[in-house]
Amino acid sequence: MIKNMQDLIKKAQALPTKKLVVAVANDHPVLEAVIMAKNEGLITPILVGDVQKIKDTFKDLGESYRDFDMIDVKDSILACETAVKLVSSGQADILMKGFVDTSVILRAALDREYGLRTQNRLSHASIIEIPLYHKLLLMSDGAMNIEPDVDIKQEIIENGVEILHAIGISNPKVGIVAAVEKVNPKMQATLDAQELIIRNQNDNIKGCTIGGPFGLDNAINKEAAIHKGVTDEMAGDVDFLLMPQIESGNVFYKSMMFLANAKSASVIAGAKKPIVLTSRADSKDSKFYSIALAVLVAEFKA
Amino acid sequence: MIKNMQDLIKKAQALPTKKLVVAVANDHPVLEAVIMAKNEGLITPILVGDVQKIKDTFKDLGESYRDFDMIDVKDSILACETAVKLVSSGQADILMKGFVDTSVILRAALDREYGLRTQNRLSHASIIEIPLYHKLLLMSDGAMNIEPDVDIKQEIIENGVEILHAIGISNPKVGIVAAVEKVNPKMQATLDAQELIIRNQNDNIKGCTIGGPFGLDNAINKEAAIHKGVTDEMAGDVDFLLMPQIESGNVFYKSMMFLANAKSASVIAGAKKPIVLTSRADSKDSKFYSIALAVLVAEFKA
Repeated sequence: MIKNMQDLIKKAQALPTKKLVVAVANDHPVLEAVIMAKNEGLITPILVGDVQKIKDTFKDLGESYRDFDMIDVKDSILACETAVKLVSSGQADILMKGFVDTSVILRAALDREYGLRTQNRLSHASIIEIPLYHKLLLMSDGAMNIEPDVDIKQEIIENGVEILHAIGISNPKVGIVAAVEKVNPKMQATLDAQELIIRNQNDNIKGCTIGGPFGLDNAINKEAAIHKGVTDEMAGDVDFLLMPQIESGNVFYKSMMFLANAKSASVIAGAKKPIVLTSRADSKDSKFYSIALAVLVAEFKA
Repeated sequence: MIKNMQDLIKKAQALPTKKLVVAVANDHPVLEAVIMAKNEGLITPILVGDVQKIKDTFKDLGESYRDFDMIDVKDSILACETAVKLVSSGQADILMKGFVDTSVILRAALDREYGLRTQNRLSHASIIEIPLYHKLLLMSDGAMNIEPDVDIKQEIIENGVEILHAIGISNPKVGIVAAVEKVNPKMQATLDAQELIIRNQNDNIKGCTIGGPFGLDNAINKEAAIHKGVTDEMAGDVDFLLMPQIESGNVFYKSMMFLANAKSASVIAGAKKPIVLTSRADSKDSKFYSIALAVLVAEFKA
């Protein structure tokens, strides 16, 4: 049972090493995390980009590039294309963004010919370790889907549930977050909760149990739920917080990271293979945890 | 300088005692907090409602009702009307909700004849003490205004700024929260940030400095702001988080209370006098802090 980031890393280390390909790899903090993940036995990296620039980045970091596979593609767009093709062809297991705009790598990843598309939309999911919560918590989507309608919310749930399956939670409890616990026609989040629960009961959303609408307190604290008369069995014990829109998810993620001493691992889900797309504001640890999570997801998808 | 809840209570205790009127006062947790606030010298309570029921509540709590002024009005709607009139006529300074639906007391508070209306809409504001933030933080609106447009956001800011003035912060830094730092036409929160800043610069929103759009991290953490290239001077040091919609505010408030060991005081602002409207889920301390905050706001408005 994975209870924290340390368990997650151990579980990833126990698996066969995965091939991770970095698109436009001359990025200092990304390379740092990649070197760490390689040293910890999680991945074998393939670095795509301007090889001279990549070597210079190693030098800046005071690290040796001797053991690293590199593919020399100077143009960023072509480097992304090359990296994506390595993953979609099965020669690598994980795609990671380097020193290139998110839009450029996602365009390559979503290419209809050589990309990593599935029938689901891409979504961003974070596994968060919060000192005051009793287990890991997946939260989605605080970074990609701005104002998802109920169909997109279904895909965000399906993408997140696969990640939870990958880390060993076989029937995760998915709490649909709103500002209130009662369905209110003026609040779309509560109507969507109702609809998503029906889809789950009709087996149109599988592999999880969906409950809500929950105020955040009822989703993560049993006493608060009892106070409010919320009787759902999963109250206080959810594995997955589905957020109503990008701002709530983003505020929650950043609240946890900056005000609650949390740790997190994030991946882009909904593609054929996991995509690691860290932000400059993420710590080195977050980047490393994200690679470990991607290893587990890649193994699960294999 | 008020840095935490203890300072806030001390400042409230130093003021002349305020008259607080409870509408439908036979509410156990509300009476508990009212008794505590009376014992601490913050308020003189006036209890409106079914006097027999109020006395029974005192008995349940093992407390004496000897020193308490009571007005016998058995019907809840009439009790709310009586309570509101006491405040609007100047015989009392603070209105507090007891054992009655929020909608009933707000209807009385908003009555055009005898109510507490101003030209601004009502909004809910919380002052939060967060162990990992260096000062008190006002957050609004996580409880009343569902999806405020930019005009309503202006009123939410004005209402919150008055509260900050009341606790001694003369020119608060107001951070407009969004999911990203750059204006993006697909994200209304970022467009509203731009407009609110212009209104502030044109002196249409006074008594504060407005900045944004901020990701939450940049608003409350200087290093995170520097990482993302956010140069606004107030980055990492805001006094006021304006949330884009009710869900983000609600999620932030509950994140802090349940996962970040925070303390909070909340009032309804935008009325002629402060209204204390606590929820059953609030702790006894939160209710007490809210009364202390209302005392400061009432003094400021006097």
